[in-house]
Amino acid sequence: MNNKNSFMLRAIELSIKSVDSNGGPFGCVIVKNKKIIAEGNNQVTSLNDPTAHAEIVAIREACNSINNFNLKGSEMYTSCEPCPMCLSAIYWAHIDKIYFGNTRVDAANIGFDDNHIYKELKKQLSLRAIPMQQINKNEAIKAFEKWELKSDKKEY
Amino acid sequence: MNNKNSFMLRAIELSIKSVDSNGGPFGCVIVKNKKIIAEGNNQVTSLNDPTAHAEIVAIREACNSINNFNLKGSEMYTSCEPCPMCLSAIYWAHIDKIYFGNTRVDAANIGFDDNHIYKELKKQLSLRAIPMQQINKNEAIKAFEKWELKSDKKEY
Repeated sequence: MNNKNSFMLRAIELSIKSVDSNGGPFGCVIVKNKKIIAEGNNQVTSLNDPTAHAEIVAIREACNSINNFNLKGSEMYTSCEPCPMCLSAIYWAHIDKIYFGNTRVDAANIGFDDNHIYKELKKQLSLRAIPMQQINKNEAIKAFEKWELKSDKKEY
Repeated sequence: MNNKNSFMLRAIELSIKSVDSNGGPFGCVIVKNKKIIAEGNNQVTSLNDPTAHAEIVAIREACNSINNFNLKGSEMYTSCEPCPMCLSAIYWAHIDKIYFGNTRVDAANIGFDDNHIYKELKKQLSLRAIPMQQINKNEAIKAFEKWELKSDKKEY
């Protein structure tokens, strides 16, 4: 068994344990320099946190462990194809590669809405299930103007 | 000035303060029963957490304040159109409506990658900038089978 599979089997082990500990059936590890630097499992209902998907939990832990918001040079092993929230977080975190086990269709088959959200994101704002309305744009832009003028800003 | 605009002006105030406190220029409030139940601002670089966007911070605080992972009956006021991570989190949290100030194009104009990630999410897996590879699917499905058989599972 190569490293790749052993890392994934650890993510799968976490997904199975998660069911036992009243989380959703999802697990994840993040690997850097051939070592696991963070692990996560779904804790949405146990923490009352809809953002506590396995991948988000692992990303937050990985960033904490290396004291950096950028995970360049890391790979993610997740027991299921990431939902759009987690996939976007992976982009923001600059992870290099994603290995996944189950697909979004497998997730939909057991009642998880990932595929529905992927479809919503593709729609124009006016056609989405959750209505979106722009207001106060003249006031909102002021923060962006202030950001542009800031000389010591920390970009990411 | 109606409530809607006053809630948005508070989100904008948070976005401006965020620049002063070394966060990104984004602020957000969540409103339930005409009262603000949570506030957030971008804390990616101050917390070393790439998921700490204003909306995610506010969602986590709102869920904590009402002790529930479901924010049905709430509305979000965010100083900028949510990025796909935050928009997906809004779907997972079942927020009723989104008011926003700046657009994703405004965000791209000052160097924030939201629009790029929206484009990536629409692509087939094999065409994405971050490579994705399925492995160990026969093992991964076991957690989903276990979830299906669990009689006391807490769905969300």
